[in-house]
Amino acid sequence: NIEEIISFAKSLKVRNFVQLGIGGSALAASAAISFLQKEKPDKRYFCLDNIDPQRLKTVLELDQADTVFHVVSKSGSTIETLSQLFVIKQHVKNANIVISTDNTDTFLRKFGTQNNYKIFDIPKEVGGRYSAFTSVALLPMAFFGFDIASYIEGAKEAVRKTRDKWGFPIDLANLVVSTYDRCKVFVMFAYKDRLYEVADWFRQLWAESLGKNNLGQTPIKALGTTDQHSQLQLYQEGIKDKLIVFLDTISDVDYTIEQAYEPFNYLKGKSIAKIMEIEKQSTIKALDESNVPTAEIFLEKIDEFTLGAFFCSLMITTAKVGEFWKINPFDQPGVELGKKYTKERLQND
Amino acid sequence: NIEEIISFAKSLKVRNFVQLGIGGSALAASAAISFLQKEKPDKRYFCLDNIDPQRLKTVLELDQADTVFHVVSKSGSTIETLSQLFVIKQHVKNANIVISTDNTDTFLRKFGTQNNYKIFDIPKEVGGRYSAFTSVALLPMAFFGFDIASYIEGAKEAVRKTRDKWGFPIDLANLVVSTYDRCKVFVMFAYKDRLYEVADWFRQLWAESLGKNNLGQTPIKALGTTDQHSQLQLYQEGIKDKLIVFLDTISDVDYTIEQAYEPFNYLKGKSIAKIMEIEKQSTIKALDESNVPTAEIFLEKIDEFTLGAFFCSLMITTAKVGEFWKINPFDQPGVELGKKYTKERLQND
Repeated sequence: NIEEIISFAKSLKVRNFVQLGIGGSALAASAAISFLQKEKPDKRYFCLDNIDPQRLKTVLELDQADTVFHVVSKSGSTIETLSQLFVIKQHVKNANIVISTDNTDTFLRKFGTQNNYKIFDIPKEVGGRYSAFTSVALLPMAFFGFDIASYIEGAKEAVRKTRDKWGFPIDLANLVVSTYDRCKVFVMFAYKDRLYEVADWFRQLWAESLGKNNLGQTPIKALGTTDQHSQLQLYQEGIKDKLIVFLDTISDVDYTIEQAYEPFNYLKGKSIAKIMEIEKQSTIKALDESNVPTAEIFLEKIDEFTLGAFFCSLMITTAKVGEFWKINPFDQPGVELGKKYTKERLQND
Repeated sequence: NIEEIISFAKSLKVRNFVQLGIGGSALAASAAISFLQKEKPDKRYFCLDNIDPQRLKTVLELDQADTVFHVVSKSGSTIETLSQLFVIKQHVKNANIVISTDNTDTFLRKFGTQNNYKIFDIPKEVGGRYSAFTSVALLPMAFFGFDIASYIEGAKEAVRKTRDKWGFPIDLANLVVSTYDRCKVFVMFAYKDRLYEVADWFRQLWAESLGKNNLGQTPIKALGTTDQHSQLQLYQEGIKDKLIVFLDTISDVDYTIEQAYEPFNYLKGKSIAKIMEIEKQSTIKALDESNVPTAEIFLEKIDEFTLGAFFCSLMITTAKVGEFWKINPFDQPGVELGKKYTKERLQND
C-alpha cells in the first residue's frame, strides 16, 4: 500500500497539491508538511480545511492543469468537503481528482468510481483524528518527497517502546491525570514556527478524544516566543488552571549577532536560535516559580521518523488518559446534534 | 499626524512591507490587513512577530531594494525585535528602516536618530495592546492604501455610543462577569478566515489585560467551520467552562452549487456562504441546547470604519471587566520575571 501511494504520488506531474478535507482529514497532512518543510520551490500545498468561499476562490484561481485535488472524507458525506468538490467540478474542466475515503460503500466512493478517479482506502476502524498513518496524510507527504516508510517506522518504534513502558507517552498521561484536579487547560507551547501546526493537530486529537461526559481538558496551541508577549501574563499571574507543555526542536538555520550596541552589548556573539532557547528556559523557570506545572518535549531531529514517533506517542497518551477517565477516546457523539440541525435547515430552506 | 503617516506611506515605493515587532507591536496590524484585504497583488506583508531564525531567513531572502522594515517596540528594548534588527543591519546594506517607539528616550529612538531613520511616536500612556490606533498599525494600513482616517472615526463612534450606554461593549462585559463563576474560558469563534487574526488580536488584549491576581479568563481563538471538526465535541459535551462568542461578517465572494447528487440533492442551489451560515446557526443552536452560553457579534461591513469601531469596542469591554474585577487592565507585571531571567542568562552566558 505504501509502495502504491509513493508510485501514485510520483506520477503526479503537477505543481499544486490541494487537500480538500476538514478536521482529521487535513490536520496531520498540514502539520507534517509544515514540520518537515524541506525546500520545494517547485511544489505548493493548499488546504481547503474551511468552507469559506474566499479560500475556495484562491484555489479556483490556480492553474488547473498544474493542480491535483486530494478529496478526503472518511464518512464520504462531509457537507463542507462535498460542497467544495461540487463547485470545483462545475468550475474546472477535467479536474485532476484523487479520493481518500472509508473502505465501505460511501457516497464519495461511488462518486469517485463513476468519475473514474483514483481512490485510496481509509480503514473503517481508523477514526479521522487517528488517520495520520493512512493515505490522508501519506499521499501529500509522498507528493512532497518525504520518506513515508520511515515515518511509519517511527510510529512502530513508539508502540514498541511504550510496550516496554519506556518514554514520555505514559509519563505525560500520568502528569495530565495527576494534575487534572487543578489543570483543566492544556497549553501546547510550540517554540518553533514549524511546530505550530503540529500543536494544532494535537489540539484536535485532545479535544475530540477526551471532551466527553463533562470531562476533558481544553487544549490550546501557543507559539513561543510570540505568545510570551500575548499569553504569558495570564499563564504567570492569572487563573491557575493550566498545564503547559513546551514543544521544541532544533534550528536548521541560524544567524549570529556580530555587532550589538550599549546597553545591549551582551547580545554580541549570541545567535538568534540561542536567544530563543534562553527565552524558553527563562519562561519555564518563571512559570515554575509561580507554581504552574510544566513539561518539555524536545524533538531531536527534523525528520519523518521523529514525526511519526511523536504523532503516535501522543495518540498513546490520549488513549491512556481516556482509560483513566473511563472515556472512549475514539468516538465523537457531541458533534452529531449540530450536523442534524445543519442537514434539516439545508433540506427545508 | 495621520496626514504625516499617509504621506510617508505614499512615499514608500516598495513592494514588501516587513513589520518587525512582537505581541502588541504586531497583532493589530496583522489583524487589520487580514480583515480588510482588498486585493493588492503588487504589495506583500510579512511579520517578524517571532524570533525563529527560519522566519528571519524568509525575510532576508526578499529583494531588499524593494523592502521596507517597520521596527516597532514601545519600550524600545524588546530583545527579540532588537536581535532581529541587528541581524538585518549586518545582512542588508542600506536597509530601508522606519521606527515606531515610545515618545520618551528609548534605546530604539537613539539608534534610529543616529542612523537617520524616520521615527514615529507611540504616546507614552498607550500600552502595546492598546496601540491599534497609533503608527504601529496605521503605517502598515496606510501602506496598503486603507483609509485610516475612517478607521479612527470608527473608534470615536464606538466611544460616543458607549457614553450613551449603547451597544455591545457593555452587554458583552456584563455577560462575561455574570457567567464568570462557570466560564473560565472565552472562545472567540471566528466564522470567516479573515476574522481569525482579529480573534488572535483579541486573545492578547484579553489575556494580558485581565490575567492577574489569580483571576482572568483564558481566551481561545477558534475558526468556524474548521473547528466544528476539531473542538466542537469538547465545547458540546466536555467540561462546561466556556463562554463562546461567534464573530462573523459578510462574504464578499461566493459560489452557488448548480448540480448536486443523491443523497445530497438538497445542496443544489445553495451557495457556499449560505451553507457556512447554516452551519454556524446550527452550531449555536446545538450549544444552546447543551446549556453552553453563547453570543454573536456580526460585522456588517468589511471596511475600516467597522474595524476601528470593533477594536475600540473590545477595548471598552476589557476596561469594563477590569473595573468589575478590580484589576488594572493596562499593566502586565507577570511577564517581568521571565524577562529578568532572560537578561541574566544572556549576560552571563
